[in-house]
Amino acid sequence: MASTPGHSSRRTAETIAVGSELLVGGRSDSNSLFIAEELSKLGLDVRFKSIVGDDESDMVAVLKTAVKRARVVVMTGGLGPTVDDCTREAVSKATGCRLARRRDAFEMMQTRIAQWGRTPNKGQLRQGLIPAGGIVLPNPVGSAPGFILPWRRSTIVALPGVPREMEPMLVESVLPYLKDQLRRSGRTAYHPRTRLVFHTYGLPEADVDAKLRGLVPKRSPVELGLLASPITVLVSLTTKPGVAAGAQALRRLADEVRGRLGRWIYGEGDDTMESVVGRLCVEKRKTVAVAESCTGGLIGHRLTQVPGSSAYLDRGVICYSNKSKTELLGVPSELIDRHGAVSAEVALAMAQGICERSGVSVGISVTGIAGPGGATPNKPVGLVFAGLHAADGQSIAKEFRFHGDRTVVKQRASQAALNLLREWLLGRQSS
Amino acid sequence: MASTPGHSSRRTAETIAVGSELLVGGRSDSNSLFIAEELSKLGLDVRFKSIVGDDESDMVAVLKTAVKRARVVVMTGGLGPTVDDCTREAVSKATGCRLARRRDAFEMMQTRIAQWGRTPNKGQLRQGLIPAGGIVLPNPVGSAPGFILPWRRSTIVALPGVPREMEPMLVESVLPYLKDQLRRSGRTAYHPRTRLVFHTYGLPEADVDAKLRGLVPKRSPVELGLLASPITVLVSLTTKPGVAAGAQALRRLADEVRGRLGRWIYGEGDDTMESVVGRLCVEKRKTVAVAESCTGGLIGHRLTQVPGSSAYLDRGVICYSNKSKTELLGVPSELIDRHGAVSAEVALAMAQGICERSGVSVGISVTGIAGPGGATPNKPVGLVFAGLHAADGQSIAKEFRFHGDRTVVKQRASQAALNLLREWLLGRQSS
Repeated sequence: MASTPGHSSRRTAETIAVGSELLVGGRSDSNSLFIAEELSKLGLDVRFKSIVGDDESDMVAVLKTAVKRARVVVMTGGLGPTVDDCTREAVSKATGCRLARRRDAFEMMQTRIAQWGRTPNKGQLRQGLIPAGGIVLPNPVGSAPGFILPWRRSTIVALPGVPREMEPMLVESVLPYLKDQLRRSGRTAYHPRTRLVFHTYGLPEADVDAKLRGLVPKRSPVELGLLASPITVLVSLTTKPGVAAGAQALRRLADEVRGRLGRWIYGEGDDTMESVVGRLCVEKRKTVAVAESCTGGLIGHRLTQVPGSSAYLDRGVICYSNKSKTELLGVPSELIDRHGAVSAEVALAMAQGICERSGVSVGISVTGIAGPGGATPNKPVGLVFAGLHAADGQSIAKEFRFHGDRTVVKQRASQAALNLLREWLLGRQSS
Repeated sequence: MASTPGHSSRRTAETIAVGSELLVGGRSDSNSLFIAEELSKLGLDVRFKSIVGDDESDMVAVLKTAVKRARVVVMTGGLGPTVDDCTREAVSKATGCRLARRRDAFEMMQTRIAQWGRTPNKGQLRQGLIPAGGIVLPNPVGSAPGFILPWRRSTIVALPGVPREMEPMLVESVLPYLKDQLRRSGRTAYHPRTRLVFHTYGLPEADVDAKLRGLVPKRSPVELGLLASPITVLVSLTTKPGVAAGAQALRRLADEVRGRLGRWIYGEGDDTMESVVGRLCVEKRKTVAVAESCTGGLIGHRLTQVPGSSAYLDRGVICYSNKSKTELLGVPSELIDRHGAVSAEVALAMAQGICERSGVSVGISVTGIAGPGGATPNKPVGLVFAGLHAADGQSIAKEFRFHGDRTVVKQRASQAALNLLREWLLGRQSS
């Protein structure tokens, strides 16, 4: 995407992720994606992202660059209690606003730590220090308060690096502040970015791309994005910021995406395969049980990530050994001997066993070879069978050949089984 | 970690990831982790990472900042054939080295495209343009050549953004070039960073910090880092680059960390709780079965992430309903009525049930309230009991009160149960 007309520098934002573990050490900065997404809803455009280690002088350098080019600078990390954590000090040095112990920040920190049945140690006491002129932000989860520091033409925001602390603080404290600031400065007639996301299953990325070819005209106010992961291909439609005609074009294009991708779309927005399955179970008053071999509990784990899943998930069994398939599910050992544990026949028997023994509406099963070991000449790593058996006697098995390592095969197998369940809940013939 | 004496700016490197999809849109920059790791082996220290969209003037701004603070600047992305791709133009603008069509670059691109049975389109022809003075880097996979541009005191490297193109180009072309450059400049007597990681469980971050206070003297060639997640506190020791005494100091400090944190350390390096448990099961020839309520399969999923886990994991049951606790594990329904499903008594009965019914060496269990619903006045969200029952009759239950949302409570509960199993495998009394 090139610079767009509405791309005013007054709307430019930058994120700074602080932490040496983000430089070397295998941890990538995911906070900035959440922040950019949320700021874009206010019409603020994250055009720069920086990552810097826990080094005070490096942080000062990065911060000084950021306030020159961005009106809103959101820092994450470096607010903890250890000596490594020097975001407070770096902001103070870069702006010249001296650190002072703030009663409100101190009390928030103390209250949180008291809830944990402790008293603050020396490091935690530093968390009550805030640059002069700063606004203290409560932390609803941890002990480190954040702050907003209006400085010259910019607004500097400092938040903890832990996502489950940072995210509510951004949404509950920072966004309302920025919204109010934008309104008071008379810059409310913006057209913030709006983004729609569609989750597809069953088509490779290249086929999704082909089906959407020519969808978005060259000068459209909407951009099309594709993002593939092992278990889904995401399609996104995003309005360009500052363009008035975006909302209408977005609605039209969304309908077109739904038309072209039809049944391949299993959800939109924040949906996950397990939340969609859960919603359908509640709607159709169905109960579920799961029999897992190679996924090892991942399907149960995913189903129980959804709050309220105890309403429809009765039980699951992880039958890693052949003996457990027979004992827990009544899979005949001759069947295993004849077809092998990784076979359509055993998948069906597992689904039937779990369905009948638990008395639920429907049972699903998975058996496969996750690798790296376990392959035979006829049965390669990635061979997976998913089964489904309903209380009315309906029975389906599907074969898959997945690529990828152990983790990816498990993920793909769990997605395939959940999709089989979803299609059954929708009353669709398996495709 | 503060600025260090050996932290010479002559060894400072920076990465710049180019691509609007890295700003908003859910894709994080993973290339820079690979690059930082590889450069660190040469003693080059990535101290800054930048991310910028496909906007030429923004790229020029970022590049100008980078060459001021880093001797080696590695850019990824923006070398493709579409109009969005303007890394070549940005480097040319930032350095004043005009773009020229280079025969070697052009031929590489043409050869690759001919292999695909095609002829270059107009966009692909642009891939033959290289800033004057640049060294062309062959791309063993795709059509876009990269380049190295020595400029003033810096070296600018431009590579494609696709990891399977970027990675071999970095390893095969860029690293040898940089190594040679370091040798010729007489800076070969470097001491690359070495990093040791210790995984601890059971102590809050503040207590780990307290136990390690004063460990690393001010002018030590080794840096200490702490990183907390919901299930572990990582302790890292990293030698500062370019310091000769690092390796010896590292060994000494590592022993000291082991001494001070002792039994709180469950693993080092790439260990995970489940891989440590797996190794112990193999060593001690023990088999395991799992009974999960609130973790919903997560413990099984984690145990089966370890290749070869079928050697010791026999089975698991996910007993979400009370009925399934009775049917699958023989937990007496009066026991559930009397103490509630979330109780030490039920955790013990679950562990005993799974151990005896599956005939394994040891059974572990978890029952708890993951939230957000399900709490009672006496039993808050986060209350979890883990149980263990061994074939020899030994039996342990532990109570936990975890903070966090549903996902975090599940993670913490799974870690607690696996740690209980680990301590039992080590023959330790539960602490």
